[in-house]
Amino acid sequence: MSMHDVIRGLLEPAKTKIVLLVADGLGGLPIEPGGKTELETARTPNLDALATEGTVGLSTPVAPGITPGSGPGHLGLFGFDPLQHDIGRGVLEALGIGVEVGPNDVAIRGNFCTIDAEGRVTDRRAGRIPTEVCEKLVEKLRVIKIDGVEVLVEPVREYRLVVRFRGEGLGDAVADTDPLSTGLHTLAPKATDPGSEKTAKVAAEFLRQAKEILKNESPANFLMMRGFAKFPQIATMEEAYGLKAAAIAVYPMYRGLAKLVGMTVVDPGKTIQDQFEVAKQNWDKYDFFFIHYKYTDSTGEDGNFAKKVEVIEALDAALPALRALNPDVLIVTGDHSTPSRMKSHSFHPVPTLLWAPATSRPDLVTTFGERPALQGGLGQFLAKDLMPLALAHAGRLQKFGA
Amino acid sequence: MSMHDVIRGLLEPAKTKIVLLVADGLGGLPIEPGGKTELETARTPNLDALATEGTVGLSTPVAPGITPGSGPGHLGLFGFDPLQHDIGRGVLEALGIGVEVGPNDVAIRGNFCTIDAEGRVTDRRAGRIPTEVCEKLVEKLRVIKIDGVEVLVEPVREYRLVVRFRGEGLGDAVADTDPLSTGLHTLAPKATDPGSEKTAKVAAEFLRQAKEILKNESPANFLMMRGFAKFPQIATMEEAYGLKAAAIAVYPMYRGLAKLVGMTVVDPGKTIQDQFEVAKQNWDKYDFFFIHYKYTDSTGEDGNFAKKVEVIEALDAALPALRALNPDVLIVTGDHSTPSRMKSHSFHPVPTLLWAPATSRPDLVTTFGERPALQGGLGQFLAKDLMPLALAHAGRLQKFGA
Repeated sequence: MSMHDVIRGLLEPAKTKIVLLVADGLGGLPIEPGGKTELETARTPNLDALATEGTVGLSTPVAPGITPGSGPGHLGLFGFDPLQHDIGRGVLEALGIGVEVGPNDVAIRGNFCTIDAEGRVTDRRAGRIPTEVCEKLVEKLRVIKIDGVEVLVEPVREYRLVVRFRGEGLGDAVADTDPLSTGLHTLAPKATDPGSEKTAKVAAEFLRQAKEILKNESPANFLMMRGFAKFPQIATMEEAYGLKAAAIAVYPMYRGLAKLVGMTVVDPGKTIQDQFEVAKQNWDKYDFFFIHYKYTDSTGEDGNFAKKVEVIEALDAALPALRALNPDVLIVTGDHSTPSRMKSHSFHPVPTLLWAPATSRPDLVTTFGERPALQGGLGQFLAKDLMPLALAHAGRLQKFGA
Repeated sequence: MSMHDVIRGLLEPAKTKIVLLVADGLGGLPIEPGGKTELETARTPNLDALATEGTVGLSTPVAPGITPGSGPGHLGLFGFDPLQHDIGRGVLEALGIGVEVGPNDVAIRGNFCTIDAEGRVTDRRAGRIPTEVCEKLVEKLRVIKIDGVEVLVEPVREYRLVVRFRGEGLGDAVADTDPLSTGLHTLAPKATDPGSEKTAKVAAEFLRQAKEILKNESPANFLMMRGFAKFPQIATMEEAYGLKAAAIAVYPMYRGLAKLVGMTVVDPGKTIQDQFEVAKQNWDKYDFFFIHYKYTDSTGEDGNFAKKVEVIEALDAALPALRALNPDVLIVTGDHSTPSRMKSHSFHPVPTLLWAPATSRPDLVTTFGERPALQGGLGQFLAKDLMPLALAHAGRLQKFGA
């Protein structure tokens, strides 16, 4: 029996509220030997108070040593094993620019490229054309019509775009058309299972029309398709946990990920203060609030230790407004670590706190940080184990067995 | 999807070096209530420095409460779940005396025994004949020839020997011929699956000739066969992790185990200083170095607490030469605990340190030992999770998902 089956059998109604505050890429590293991490350096009196009253620990997003992308990182926090639920590349690219992907859709990453007179690829990225050129070319591609399928084309940036086909019977088992090196012809879209033959035909027709439209452009006179992907088969938060869930996220990727698990995306405003205010305004309508804070990740990716410290302090300063809503369970964590020293996502466990005034068993930890979290009551755990804990602390799970 | 499948999909080339230094049976116990373990007693400034700069924790070789043999203990450290990969008894016995076991081989443990005139077993161990007698009898058995199969016989010690059949179509599903108590006839070798019929026939012919050869010997006038085993189906370090791996181990068993996962066995010299020097000489040729140190186990097995402390200190004193090679990742651990108080392998978790100057997240631990390791950043983990961590710290794994 899967953990989700167990949980579903134990759910009971409650009026409690759960907040999952994800500070993207929260975990970090010291820059100097023996030094402090970003979170340990930041002055965070409000997070420290929550850590003191609640329980802390370290979350492993996917598995030891695995550096997650945003998709697997968030699926884990939503309680789904990221190793069991694959979100295809095309879907993620679409979500990242706010393109909806529904059950009848196949989303595809497109790359503009340059081909020579014989059709051989001479540049797989079309000289990295500027985003404005990409937008103009995508505008031209919008005239493409294919019988029985709705076609959407959207620019991403530089040479990248998203293509979405909507229609019945569209499988996503279609191989990339990128030959992966220059001097070769692009490949015809080829179905690798019978259920994807229609998608392969549609893609071939799309490429035929696109080649005609782009033939006089330079350097982007064709495109390649990669990462054909359907909406993943995954339960909604309501189906899995009986939760009406709202997503309050500024960036499209995270709103898209929330939609994958059936959350309602609420207009978040612009700042974290706005997001907490939006939570307040919607407090009675939902059981679960996913609030996403991007800047702990982007400053880490930039390698800006001081700035990451600053945005952590800004998040901390805003927290009293969230706490004033009196959630029954408040979790603060990240979908992965993004140490500014590494300028990238990393595999390091993520400091996590779970504050539930009615049921938290406090540990001895009084500050929020990577080293203190090692001594915490949550121990080191897999991210997917957080949701059952949240439901339990929210009084939403009956006893298992008699 | 298995963890190995995940890892294989994420591998990326790197020039980094990983060292896995296995101090066999490293973990211990205090002799007196409240006392220190062997490792805690030992003066280990170099290990302590690595613990301070790196991250420590405790490795559970197989599963809680399970005392591993050397086979499962090492398989776990090499990243293979010992519960999923069985190394047959015959193969381990062969490896232990340096007999090669290849894909076309079946290795079998032999016991000399005594039978009476009616063929009934009167002593299952032939009065524990001395090793010299065993060697002479094995010499006599070397005349045995069987059509279509290459036969190898090697003494182990006392009444124990190894038989290896090499040839096509030899399965290993053959039941032991040991009746398990005296007064009974030895059993005929019986295949328990169709693919092992040939092996059963070959074994029967071997036993027929052996009985003839040994009939006038006393007390060892026959032998029984146990633990028929083939080379296990297991990926090599190169297949699983893209690593060119060298094994620098003095004892045959550990060289054999390393060969099972495709490591190249390098002549180790005699002392740990030699082994580190050999690592230096081969530094450019390999990505991964498995260095095995036996004496932490053998002193534990002897129940010699003071001597175990001494060999730990000797290992520590040699360490600067290894550290001077500037590995990107250096792991110091054991394949299991061997507390001198128990004079045997045990199920206790094994103190482990992972030092990776570019990516280690330091914890608050500044000495290497069982109690300090409990506070460490690696937490308590399964041995099989170490390899993914090592690869991650060595910059050899891409991001999982987007």
